[in-house]
Amino acid sequence: MEAYLDNSATTKCFEEVISAVESEMREFYGNPSSMHNKGFEAEKKIRETTKIIASTLKCDESEIIYTSGGTESDNMALIGVARAYRRSGKHIITTKIEHEAVLETAEFLREEGFEITYLSTDSRGIVDLKELEEAVREDTILVSVMAVNNEIGCVEPLEEISKIVKKKNPSTLFHVDAVQGYGKIKILPKQMGIDLLSVSSHKIHGPKGVGFLYASYKIKIKPVIFGGGQQKGRRSGTENVCGIMGMGAAIEKVFADFDENTQRMRTLRKRLAEKISVTEKIVINGAEEENSAPHILSVSVRGVRAEVLLHSLEEKGIYVSSGSACASNRNTVSATLKAIGVEKELLDSTIRFSLSVLTTEEEIDYAARAFNENIEILRKYVRR
Amino acid sequence: MEAYLDNSATTKCFEEVISAVESEMREFYGNPSSMHNKGFEAEKKIRETTKIIASTLKCDESEIIYTSGGTESDNMALIGVARAYRRSGKHIITTKIEHEAVLETAEFLREEGFEITYLSTDSRGIVDLKELEEAVREDTILVSVMAVNNEIGCVEPLEEISKIVKKKNPSTLFHVDAVQGYGKIKILPKQMGIDLLSVSSHKIHGPKGVGFLYASYKIKIKPVIFGGGQQKGRRSGTENVCGIMGMGAAIEKVFADFDENTQRMRTLRKRLAEKISVTEKIVINGAEEENSAPHILSVSVRGVRAEVLLHSLEEKGIYVSSGSACASNRNTVSATLKAIGVEKELLDSTIRFSLSVLTTEEEIDYAARAFNENIEILRKYVRR
Repeated sequence: MEAYLDNSATTKCFEEVISAVESEMREFYGNPSSMHNKGFEAEKKIRETTKIIASTLKCDESEIIYTSGGTESDNMALIGVARAYRRSGKHIITTKIEHEAVLETAEFLREEGFEITYLSTDSRGIVDLKELEEAVREDTILVSVMAVNNEIGCVEPLEEISKIVKKKNPSTLFHVDAVQGYGKIKILPKQMGIDLLSVSSHKIHGPKGVGFLYASYKIKIKPVIFGGGQQKGRRSGTENVCGIMGMGAAIEKVFADFDENTQRMRTLRKRLAEKISVTEKIVINGAEEENSAPHILSVSVRGVRAEVLLHSLEEKGIYVSSGSACASNRNTVSATLKAIGVEKELLDSTIRFSLSVLTTEEEIDYAARAFNENIEILRKYVRR
Repeated sequence: MEAYLDNSATTKCFEEVISAVESEMREFYGNPSSMHNKGFEAEKKIRETTKIIASTLKCDESEIIYTSGGTESDNMALIGVARAYRRSGKHIITTKIEHEAVLETAEFLREEGFEITYLSTDSRGIVDLKELEEAVREDTILVSVMAVNNEIGCVEPLEEISKIVKKKNPSTLFHVDAVQGYGKIKILPKQMGIDLLSVSSHKIHGPKGVGFLYASYKIKIKPVIFGGGQQKGRRSGTENVCGIMGMGAAIEKVFADFDENTQRMRTLRKRLAEKISVTEKIVINGAEEENSAPHILSVSVRGVRAEVLLHSLEEKGIYVSSGSACASNRNTVSATLKAIGVEKELLDSTIRFSLSVLTTEEEIDYAARAFNENIEILRKYVRR
């Protein structure tokens, strides 16, 4: 049997996604910029996806900019806003537990002369709102906070964050990295005071290499990639039509049964947590259930190295992640786990289970059983 | 009947490409950064494409950086080099006939404090080598010249350019935008003194949304997109594995019969040129045959507006481009046509036929016949 429980690293494409991608490559292969029918057809296909996305966010279609993925969306949000508003101020606020796509981009901007404030979180990973309030200044042009942490699954109080920020400085923009949140928790930018929102396709059963940035029509944004002026000059380069069509098919399916899908994941996550909590030697990281995303379960196992546990599970066809898989094979200590104050001893003993709408009860039960068996065996080795 | 002759805008995917993309989405969907087998399998698939690419360029696999397409590759070459070498100098040389992905990026760098020199060309579109030699200075960090012009198909003397540049300043790097050249003319970077080379997948029957930048191991390059440190930190973001696999399949096929394929395109291009040259009222732009790419034919038709001709051909199922289709629906006058000195009257009367390895003799004959018929009819209207 196999249990793919590394869905926060990437997901398997839906069959509908494969069909959509294929149809572009066979039929709708025109360049959307071409002035003939093959171009118009491709452009129409893009618009269909834009319509789907806009309906999930209750926003205008003109507010969607296609990118090559979540990382580029985050880069575009931070750098694009920094370049457009540098005259208004050079202060940016983010958190210590952001994805590297935000942290490294912030670091680049720091080198370019911006000042970055990194907010702390509590032990659940929830941003310190008092610290946030104090941090917002007259020259703060942007606050960037993720919707759902990719390692521990805590959900940030986005609406509250926006209120605090806008009350202190109505001109400060609010960016949300929703790569792990979109399709998993409800996010409505206009209602929640979000000005920019980053999304990746391959985390929700769409193709890799594509994503989008929501950018409110009220704000300015400068491009990060220059060229032929596609997407109203905001992001040049021939649109990834097959990727966009595939992403549209994925989003359509995820949002068609949003409540049912997320509830099912939540139930399975709880089931997994309960089944593996039989031993006192494990610690579940992150927030309590109501502040947690439905699909991520971070577990620290005292006395067992994450990598060893990961490979022992892999031998049984169970795929999980140690730390954050997006950080390209690097064996650095997780900034998130450190920020939430995980014991030093456990930093290197933490694995992440991540579920998707395709995850089954059988997979969960199989994985829980294997986990319990394996940590027993591995601990014996440690004792020796 | 249908004749798709807009292959320089984009091409239809090979069946082998569709299969490769599909296999990623069904089977090899892991995140290459994941530490388990699903990740390793995906990583292995990327390496297979890298190996194919490296063999076509006779370069090392470590010199290939995957991007979201030709535009990003160009951006990365210019901005990445500018950031890495800004302390050595702030002068960059390019040409007046580059693609917008180079021109607009150069313009961005100009705003950032770099000085840009734009070289002229002769009436064939070939760069003025004397002007180049005079332009290279001690503080020139980069020269960027395209391999094949996207609008008129002239081939630049890359090896000669490199020799002139390196003789004047051995530290100056040489970037080639090979988006229209790769797979169409022979380009061997090491042999030709090229340090950086941009390629797009969708111009050679691969998927949209993917491309690569060759960057010699001898040079430094700073990232344009920041994040998880994928691709040795040079380009962050989860690799577009399906796109990369598709591109690999496309490159493999294009290069398997390189000489035969390019010769066939060349023959068909010549056939088209001959069949439509029956009227004295047309002008073929660009270089004579030996300095022209095998797939692009730019034609100016006196007294007929390009857009009208384009749509009249479209009605017969023939797809061509007016000016450069990559410039996103913009109705601006072509910088290339202006630079090569096309008569003002003809600037707005120029269409581009562009062929591919999938183009057939029947398509060419059909298109030539329709072209000749249509310009006769359109001219009658003009006379009235």
